[in-house]
Amino acid sequence: MNNIITVNYEEKPVYDITLEYNYNMLYKELDKLGTSKKKICVVTDSNLSRHYLNELIELLKDYAKVVETFTFPAGETSKNLETVQELYNRLIQSNFDRKDLLVALGGGVVGDLTGYAAATYLRGIQFIQLPTSLLAMVDSSIGGKTGVDFQDYKNMVGAFHQPAAVYMNLSTLYTLSDVQFFSGLGEIIKHGLIKESSYYLWLKENIDSIKKREPDSLREMVFRSCKIKQEVVEKDPKEQGERALLNFGHTIGHAVEKLMDFKLLHGECVAVGMVAASYLSYKKNWITLEELEDIKKVLKAFELPISISGLDPNEIYRVTTHDKKVEGNKIKFILLRRIGEAYIDIEVTPAEIIESIEYILED
Amino acid sequence: MNNIITVNYEEKPVYDITLEYNYNMLYKELDKLGTSKKKICVVTDSNLSRHYLNELIELLKDYAKVVETFTFPAGETSKNLETVQELYNRLIQSNFDRKDLLVALGGGVVGDLTGYAAATYLRGIQFIQLPTSLLAMVDSSIGGKTGVDFQDYKNMVGAFHQPAAVYMNLSTLYTLSDVQFFSGLGEIIKHGLIKESSYYLWLKENIDSIKKREPDSLREMVFRSCKIKQEVVEKDPKEQGERALLNFGHTIGHAVEKLMDFKLLHGECVAVGMVAASYLSYKKNWITLEELEDIKKVLKAFELPISISGLDPNEIYRVTTHDKKVEGNKIKFILLRRIGEAYIDIEVTPAEIIESIEYILED
Repeated sequence: MNNIITVNYEEKPVYDITLEYNYNMLYKELDKLGTSKKKICVVTDSNLSRHYLNELIELLKDYAKVVETFTFPAGETSKNLETVQELYNRLIQSNFDRKDLLVALGGGVVGDLTGYAAATYLRGIQFIQLPTSLLAMVDSSIGGKTGVDFQDYKNMVGAFHQPAAVYMNLSTLYTLSDVQFFSGLGEIIKHGLIKESSYYLWLKENIDSIKKREPDSLREMVFRSCKIKQEVVEKDPKEQGERALLNFGHTIGHAVEKLMDFKLLHGECVAVGMVAASYLSYKKNWITLEELEDIKKVLKAFELPISISGLDPNEIYRVTTHDKKVEGNKIKFILLRRIGEAYIDIEVTPAEIIESIEYILED
Repeated sequence: MNNIITVNYEEKPVYDITLEYNYNMLYKELDKLGTSKKKICVVTDSNLSRHYLNELIELLKDYAKVVETFTFPAGETSKNLETVQELYNRLIQSNFDRKDLLVALGGGVVGDLTGYAAATYLRGIQFIQLPTSLLAMVDSSIGGKTGVDFQDYKNMVGAFHQPAAVYMNLSTLYTLSDVQFFSGLGEIIKHGLIKESSYYLWLKENIDSIKKREPDSLREMVFRSCKIKQEVVEKDPKEQGERALLNFGHTIGHAVEKLMDFKLLHGECVAVGMVAASYLSYKKNWITLEELEDIKKVLKAFELPISISGLDPNEIYRVTTHDKKVEGNKIKFILLRRIGEAYIDIEVTPAEIIESIEYILED
């Protein structure tokens, strides 16, 4: 099976996504970037298995002039401009210049923050993504969206800055807890629902082997999800149209994530948000009640929540409509025309939104 | 005389630079951007003549959905991430989304900071430049370099983000003090020296009318300088080669600027830096002693300093070599091959640098 996906912009290849079960082939990407003349700073968080970090540093030492490490406390609460400024300080102290390189080793928080620092240090330096979570592999490491949270707002400050390479060591997936692993499945099921019904079917047929994290299933799953993500971001690098489809489940999902104060993982909130968006798709007569129930069944099979409790529907509504994706007072909802095809709907009424929110609330 | 310059990237027109003596034609740019559906935030500093700000706001009100103003204390000390964060807060409070627009009304500090906020708010929104200083008109408003200072480092944090339009109301040049006006001449003389000997000659022949700020001379001067800047940035939008030539006079100039704690204006420091770089060009047998003396004479005629006092040469050397343009421990100097042609020299020795620093120090 092919294990490399090339991402193009304006028909030119920009970077490769490599899928392996170790870091042995990373040197090929480093060689392409000429790292032997560069300083490298590995950015990671306190959660990351020491095993992978040390192994990686040893490996990088043979391919770089200097290897530094910058570690920050794990979690969304570190994803802010203060952490970015600490990283700038570190790079300045170590005399990093425009030719040097950042390496993001970790999940989505590490990747987004490192990418943002790379986008803005000296008006932009190169960085590579080594995603270690399922969510980062299939979603945040691809497409050049970088950013940090500001005040209470997720990814309010950011930039589009493409990585110079994305390299996935799939064996890092075995270090994830079940809840972290299944959280990643939220975005994966989303890919099937919005773009490829055959992939959605494949996921349903392989629930057991995926849950057991069987290597071949993981590889095929990550590969197919990366391929879908790559095709979407290539068509719309700056999120001006098509790429918005990737926000399926995110409009209400983000509001839930915020109101739960990040106690639920991102993929879990997206799962709940997808139920609400699927309900709206059913109410608008696009998908059937059976399909809506099937989506909920699949999410449940992958241990994802399909409802939440303890939140006030009016609060969810308020936060949803204050979300940054609001344009000209119209809420942009991504709905399903059918399983495998999403579209942007700007005609969802406040009453319909409230109804979909009530649908995901437990009594 | 033509008063519009179009800036292209990859052979596609990206924005126009318009030269006028009032804001009457600004509506054309606003129409092109469809501002009637947008919120606009005018960013400016406390120095800016109330006259122009109020006139501008009245004018914008007819072409935008909402017009806000964000004013910060004038000066380089405001050019930092704290001010940028205050601006983010303001935009969030006013519900600015990705379709909205920032307008930078002011000199280089306002333009650089506004551009950086526009580059990073919601991963990038549009902004337009309304430069009011000579320096901003001929230099910082063109080419998409945005950024702020960080710790003691100038423009350490930034991004490339192209404006959607640059509109110059040349009558704002009459509100500048002499020292501010002449500071802009530093970059203008640089343009002649690095790119166009006939422009350098024209400047020499028009010293009187330029110093009197005669409208036709100002217009021709700003137009020719913008044209040179446009040609350089088009060839090298991300400063990977040719654009470095614009740093003529800046390597030592930045060090002087920093050590003088920004008590000298940028253009004044560039003037002194150009004397040092011209001296190195003479010592390397590229330009003659007569040409070196001529450059000093022209700078002096435009009231620019050609030497400084009170600084320690070793300190200037230390700060120069810690400048961010240091690559692989080699200092990149821009020198003159002849009047009107610059090149990048990476072979300047520490002894030569010290000698050129001593040349610009008064006894």
